[in-house]
Amino acid sequence: MDNILNINGITCAAINSGIKHAQNFSENLSIKDTKKLDLSIIFLKKGTQTAAVFTKNIFCAAPVLVAKNHLNHAIKALVINSGNANAGTGLVGLKNTYKVCDLVAKELDIKAEQVLPFSTGVIGQLLPMACFENNISTLVSNLAIDNFSQVAQAIMTTDLVDKVYSKQFKIGDNLITITGFAKGSGMIRPDMATMLSFIFTDIEATQSELQNCLTQAVNQSFNRITIDGDTSTNDACTLSATGVSSIKINDCMEKFQQSLNTVTKILAHKIIKDGEGATKFVEVCVKGGISVKDCLEVAYTVAHSPLVKTALFASDANWGRILAAVGRANIKYLRIEDVSIYLGKICLIKAGELNVYYTEAQGEAQMKKSEIVITIEIGKGELTESVWTTDLSYDYIKINSAYRT
Amino acid sequence: MDNILNINGITCAAINSGIKHAQNFSENLSIKDTKKLDLSIIFLKKGTQTAAVFTKNIFCAAPVLVAKNHLNHAIKALVINSGNANAGTGLVGLKNTYKVCDLVAKELDIKAEQVLPFSTGVIGQLLPMACFENNISTLVSNLAIDNFSQVAQAIMTTDLVDKVYSKQFKIGDNLITITGFAKGSGMIRPDMATMLSFIFTDIEATQSELQNCLTQAVNQSFNRITIDGDTSTNDACTLSATGVSSIKINDCMEKFQQSLNTVTKILAHKIIKDGEGATKFVEVCVKGGISVKDCLEVAYTVAHSPLVKTALFASDANWGRILAAVGRANIKYLRIEDVSIYLGKICLIKAGELNVYYTEAQGEAQMKKSEIVITIEIGKGELTESVWTTDLSYDYIKINSAYRT
Repeated sequence: MDNILNINGITCAAINSGIKHAQNFSENLSIKDTKKLDLSIIFLKKGTQTAAVFTKNIFCAAPVLVAKNHLNHAIKALVINSGNANAGTGLVGLKNTYKVCDLVAKELDIKAEQVLPFSTGVIGQLLPMACFENNISTLVSNLAIDNFSQVAQAIMTTDLVDKVYSKQFKIGDNLITITGFAKGSGMIRPDMATMLSFIFTDIEATQSELQNCLTQAVNQSFNRITIDGDTSTNDACTLSATGVSSIKINDCMEKFQQSLNTVTKILAHKIIKDGEGATKFVEVCVKGGISVKDCLEVAYTVAHSPLVKTALFASDANWGRILAAVGRANIKYLRIEDVSIYLGKICLIKAGELNVYYTEAQGEAQMKKSEIVITIEIGKGELTESVWTTDLSYDYIKINSAYRT
Repeated sequence: MDNILNINGITCAAINSGIKHAQNFSENLSIKDTKKLDLSIIFLKKGTQTAAVFTKNIFCAAPVLVAKNHLNHAIKALVINSGNANAGTGLVGLKNTYKVCDLVAKELDIKAEQVLPFSTGVIGQLLPMACFENNISTLVSNLAIDNFSQVAQAIMTTDLVDKVYSKQFKIGDNLITITGFAKGSGMIRPDMATMLSFIFTDIEATQSELQNCLTQAVNQSFNRITIDGDTSTNDACTLSATGVSSIKINDCMEKFQQSLNTVTKILAHKIIKDGEGATKFVEVCVKGGISVKDCLEVAYTVAHSPLVKTALFASDANWGRILAAVGRANIKYLRIEDVSIYLGKICLIKAGELNVYYTEAQGEAQMKKSEIVITIEIGKGELTESVWTTDLSYDYIKINSAYRT
């Protein structure tokens, strides 16, 4: 795990509340040495501002609906459980989420509307409410500034590793710190679904400033990764700023945005590297587009192609599959004679035809690497966009075709 | 193989020309007992009208470009090779295709523009022209009315079975016959890609009447099937009408369209059943849409979801994955409380929540069947649309991650 820097104004705690056990998921989880932490509270100092982005899946889970409702209040706490996503649970699920916020609020002497709830885990089952009732008081008494690593572990479901990253930058003599953590490894299993990420900083900012920064950061990181193209009902990412540094975001906007972009991009890449059954980390970079949308359309068509993904798994430099996927992307003005394709620095396709200097041995050498960059030049404009993905392996089928237990 | 009915006015022949051997693909093909037939000519009686639809992949292969060019002439012959797709071969590939048309035209004493060429097989390699030069004369002298079954086999690449279907209907005392054959089993291997289908009838019709009928038939059959969402650079489907029956299409338009729809739908289903690594034949039926487009958007999002497809492979009645895929489809007005999901006759989700009468045993029993219907009611309108697909199995990965040899 990368070094985690604490954030002044943020305290947190995690506990083994028994939710994962209640879902009978314990045997399948890869969390062996962490006492199955599954319930966390993060307490935000007075004055902290919080922004958030949520899943675009229109069937949001109960916690997402409640979190969206609460976001226009002064948020003072996050409560996160793993093991149960409280998704597909209807009105009872919604009531349970409100109840969880109540429990947290009472213990912290704040309003229920000041609590943002998050859940991840199996879907279609009701939250085991006793796990919350019996443990929130203990959690609150355990709140401490240096518990980030516990929480990073407590939000894991089928993740093989926890995912944390901290970054600092200097503004005059002052240091600004950003720490983020995340969970997710594709939308795995009956739906240990969900990408969650929580980011904290000691900068001073308004909610709308944070919202702008977060949206921009997420768009170039979490929204640029894909394992299987599926989107969970529970995805969420928050950014909380305590203001303890007394440095205003406007005095260092560019540096802050760059650092936040780095934190989110590194967390996003950690999710891909922990992708279900992944043996390769793959960047698909599209150059020469006339719009971001068109670059992404080409990049995602390649990144989602099962034929490209199985070729990556086989280390087969199958340019035909890449070229066919580019042609299938819905970009009417593309012309094959403008298209060039590279693996790393090796040019496979030049102006729509096989590069005469290319050898299969070169392609194979590139494809055998564990990190691969596929560059597609479409020769129409000035824009470049990348997405990140994995290969499609036997293990993906194995993980995803295992029965729910 | 289903019974093949001959069509008056159509003669054909197939031969082992050595193209498959030239591509070194012979060992991998499942065609063991057919002497590796790989080159076919279909000769159309004078006056025959031909309509065609082609791949929407904007990087068309050379034969598709040439066939599109020739279609506005009076088509008298189809020439089809398997083993080499002549795709990604640039200007030389284009020249070779024109040369093939020339060779056929000379032997048949017609114009080169009256020949439609089709290729399927490995991409990125030049056509072995000697295989054409040495065999077209023999092929032409072998033309006969009862050779359809040879041609059905000669167009196969990684197909495990040939795919043929004939249908007759009566109009007064006269019989009209439609015979079609097809190849394709997903976009397999370095790109033994390609769905091809050729349909023949003795009805009398203009090209534009045939084009309307064919477009309508393809839209409810070949355009409703998906194995892995990839589209080949060579896909094509033709419909030729000899007019020998002297029955005008306008005297039986509805019957003809229905019969053509049946032929194309059955051929499409045969392709799915022969899908790469397929263990299940799956219909995804969306009911209650307000537009065809929206129904298909939901149906394809479910049918393409790797999570749904792996659950199908595992016979896991994982309604959460289906529900999440429905929510991910880009239909803004969908409300979860309007959505119901069925496996066969079994209701899993009723008004957005787990049906209280549903048991896992019921779901499992449905999922263990080799043919599965997933019905999704979205409760907004009157329209119903279906697409057909397969599960995602270990064998899919195996077939598609095998090296080109």
